[in-house]
Amino acid sequence: MNAAYDRLKSRFARIATLGEAQAMLHWDASAMMPPGGAAARGEQLATLAGLAHDLLTVPAVAEDLADAEAAGEWDAPNLDLMRRVHLRASALPTALVEAMARANAACETIWREAKATADFPLVRPALGEVVRLQREMAEALSGLTGLSPYDSLMEGFQRGVTAAEVEPVFSAYEAFLADALPQAEAIQARRPAAVPLPGPFPVAAQKALCQRMSERVGLDYAHARLDESLHPFCGGTPNDVRITTFYAADDVAKALMGVLHETGHAQYERGLPAAWARQPVGEAAGMAAHESQSLIIEMQACRSDPFLAFLGDELHRTFGGDAAPYGTANLAAHWRHVSRGFIRVDADELTYPAHVILRFRLERALIGGDLTVADLPEAWNAGLRGLLGISPPDDARGCLQDIHWHDGAFGYFPSYTLGAMAAAQLMRAARRDVPGLDAALALGDMRPLMGWLREKVHGQGARLGFQDLLRFATGKPLDPADFTDHLRARYLAA
Amino acid sequence: MNAAYDRLKSRFARIATLGEAQAMLHWDASAMMPPGGAAARGEQLATLAGLAHDLLTVPAVAEDLADAEAAGEWDAPNLDLMRRVHLRASALPTALVEAMARANAACETIWREAKATADFPLVRPALGEVVRLQREMAEALSGLTGLSPYDSLMEGFQRGVTAAEVEPVFSAYEAFLADALPQAEAIQARRPAAVPLPGPFPVAAQKALCQRMSERVGLDYAHARLDESLHPFCGGTPNDVRITTFYAADDVAKALMGVLHETGHAQYERGLPAAWARQPVGEAAGMAAHESQSLIIEMQACRSDPFLAFLGDELHRTFGGDAAPYGTANLAAHWRHVSRGFIRVDADELTYPAHVILRFRLERALIGGDLTVADLPEAWNAGLRGLLGISPPDDARGCLQDIHWHDGAFGYFPSYTLGAMAAAQLMRAARRDVPGLDAALALGDMRPLMGWLREKVHGQGARLGFQDLLRFATGKPLDPADFTDHLRARYLAA
Repeated sequence: MNAAYDRLKSRFARIATLGEAQAMLHWDASAMMPPGGAAARGEQLATLAGLAHDLLTVPAVAEDLADAEAAGEWDAPNLDLMRRVHLRASALPTALVEAMARANAACETIWREAKATADFPLVRPALGEVVRLQREMAEALSGLTGLSPYDSLMEGFQRGVTAAEVEPVFSAYEAFLADALPQAEAIQARRPAAVPLPGPFPVAAQKALCQRMSERVGLDYAHARLDESLHPFCGGTPNDVRITTFYAADDVAKALMGVLHETGHAQYERGLPAAWARQPVGEAAGMAAHESQSLIIEMQACRSDPFLAFLGDELHRTFGGDAAPYGTANLAAHWRHVSRGFIRVDADELTYPAHVILRFRLERALIGGDLTVADLPEAWNAGLRGLLGISPPDDARGCLQDIHWHDGAFGYFPSYTLGAMAAAQLMRAARRDVPGLDAALALGDMRPLMGWLREKVHGQGARLGFQDLLRFATGKPLDPADFTDHLRARYLAA
Repeated sequence: MNAAYDRLKSRFARIATLGEAQAMLHWDASAMMPPGGAAARGEQLATLAGLAHDLLTVPAVAEDLADAEAAGEWDAPNLDLMRRVHLRASALPTALVEAMARANAACETIWREAKATADFPLVRPALGEVVRLQREMAEALSGLTGLSPYDSLMEGFQRGVTAAEVEPVFSAYEAFLADALPQAEAIQARRPAAVPLPGPFPVAAQKALCQRMSERVGLDYAHARLDESLHPFCGGTPNDVRITTFYAADDVAKALMGVLHETGHAQYERGLPAAWARQPVGEAAGMAAHESQSLIIEMQACRSDPFLAFLGDELHRTFGGDAAPYGTANLAAHWRHVSRGFIRVDADELTYPAHVILRFRLERALIGGDLTVADLPEAWNAGLRGLLGISPPDDARGCLQDIHWHDGAFGYFPSYTLGAMAAAQLMRAARRDVPGLDAALALGDMRPLMGWLREKVHGQGARLGFQDLLRFATGKPLDPADFTDHLRARYLAA
């Protein structure tokens, strides 16, 4: 450690503090802001982003990075991460960054209309420009990072795993699903149909229940808020996390499962190493790691039989009426229902990866130049037919459904399924390490699981990349068998 | 106008945009933030303030200010205000700025305990240090502005009026009050006592009423929010104003009058000239001008007989019960009640200036070196006795009651009474210029008044200082007779 490194730590702390301000303003824009504030908010966020970029790219940073020395299991990766962040920020010509910002904003606006009218040709030229610029960025980054162009994009969301590692994992899942999905459907068909939950579910009671359940997961509301927004998310900062959800008076699962999911994200942020706050190494380890934390809470823990038993009692106590529909088997029939659908965000745990595999392959081909934007709808429909045996009736329920590509996010999609797989692997390791974990879940007690996650994942910050973090926590790199074993136990046991 | 001036406009717009981000984070801290977020929020605000200060004080600014040329009724004062802002920001040695920040924060913390325990000696040393540094700052600014030391502090809150102009105005008010207060008390004593309003006042119904009434004043909730906080305030930005209030289930006036007051502030921000947004000349004209806008709405318009008649009907419709207590005379007996009290923030319209006059004289003497901090409690008690004939039972209800001095704000207090006087002067001019203004108020219609304020005050931004703004709007500089005439009509007509 030397003076140059100390200067960098101060500078990166300042940049991270600006990032916290941006995070709060983003949350406000989604959860609080009146519509008339939007234009001014855009300016505020752009100004903060510009100042942060300036702080990161002035010549003094390159000089200090050349001179900096750091050793040890935290400082060494911290300096390494500073170099990566700086490289990515300074590698791209300003003209390209500005062209991307304009192209993404223009495409997103057109996409909203194209999706509403199921009119892919409307957005095709704008999306073509987005893809062209993404390729240009990917090539520029690739020359500096030594990664492939697509991996250079993926690294912006998730460090420490390559497309070459992901592809065989996804192909194996495709093969697994070809057998598992019809089996699961057959087993499901033989079971009694789900009995509707009695309801109604007054929003105020749902809200109190959601907060209570997130407190069960360990969220401390002295450092958190729960609010409403159109699209649920987890925002804010580690000391002040802001989760949101959307309440439907006729469906309690939507808000409740959403809050439990976002609480998993929130707990990751809350558990990041305080000693490394506002340093690159003190951040979360990437989007796949983040998704593993929302899914280990929502999918692994909260939709498990033991926790559903606890939750059914809570629901009945809260909303009254007939107790029978709140039994574990009926809740499972509702909340672990498998079906082949067109829409990713509505998909169940078993078919969700098919949606991600489809997008991973298509975006890789788009960036690699093996697929043109004009051919995207046909490739999408053929791909979904191959994976799930269904074909969307229009592009609104096909290649127009997600905002991601139309907003310039390429390389993000794999995170969802890498996260789901990591969640299963972490859960298996936690069960091995922590005796009585499921017995605790049956009492609604998340502390044993959360204690393990605090030590093995949250507290490690970004010290380790995705694969190394899994090695540290579970003793092995990504092992998709843990996920398929979990799915077999949950969906294929007759 | 030249290139240097254009560069300055861009730079000041960037600084103002940072200021908007700070304003939103301040609002969030008071209205939304969980307590655990406080330390991080302090860092975020300090970082933004530091970046804004850097943008304002780099050498390029002084060079551009030296070269800049601007003419016309907006650009010329804009450049002049840029010079003042820059002068104030760059005049003070960094060591002094930091010493003040530390001393103010330390004193504020000790003050909270001193106030809770009515223990002035506890805070005396810390307040002594605050005063010493304020004097140092005042001297440094005085040397550059050519104003007196105290006026240099006052200019930070209110431009365009000096203590030499204020002192005779306040002395005349003191003389007026010596006669008026006993008369008003005697008249009040001869009237029937106020009959309690029936209540209860459920918070949800109060909230809806408060929003409806602020909409009556013209606030557009596409650009505004109404929330709750311990101390009501108006924050946010011109495109996205955030007002807050505090609901008491047994008292509807507290929240309602508070919201109407803050709506006056909010409407000033909303009506600032959009073409000059984010330029110094596009801001409000100072704290006295701002207070004139909250008080013309709350005190002049909403507590007038015509509006009370409208409001009484609204209240009865909202809360039901016996209609009689909602009559104008009974509402006036509640909401225009005069009494000699120790606490400024609880004071009525007639005695409020006495509290301000006391503080103005004491802070001027503290900064001028004519009063020591050790002698403050005795001077306070003697001063209040002279003005209102009462003496506080302890310092918590005396010189410890306000946060201002203990947080390093000297020169702010006169704004309250200058604003009250300006509000009366503006109201008289509006009545002269706008026929049917009171008839409209009786229907709850604020549009005639608001249209006049938009043109005469809000739309003028900071183009004119306090006295010049009054000249522009009313044809004369501050004329306290308009205020005393208003008080005579309201409180001394038997």
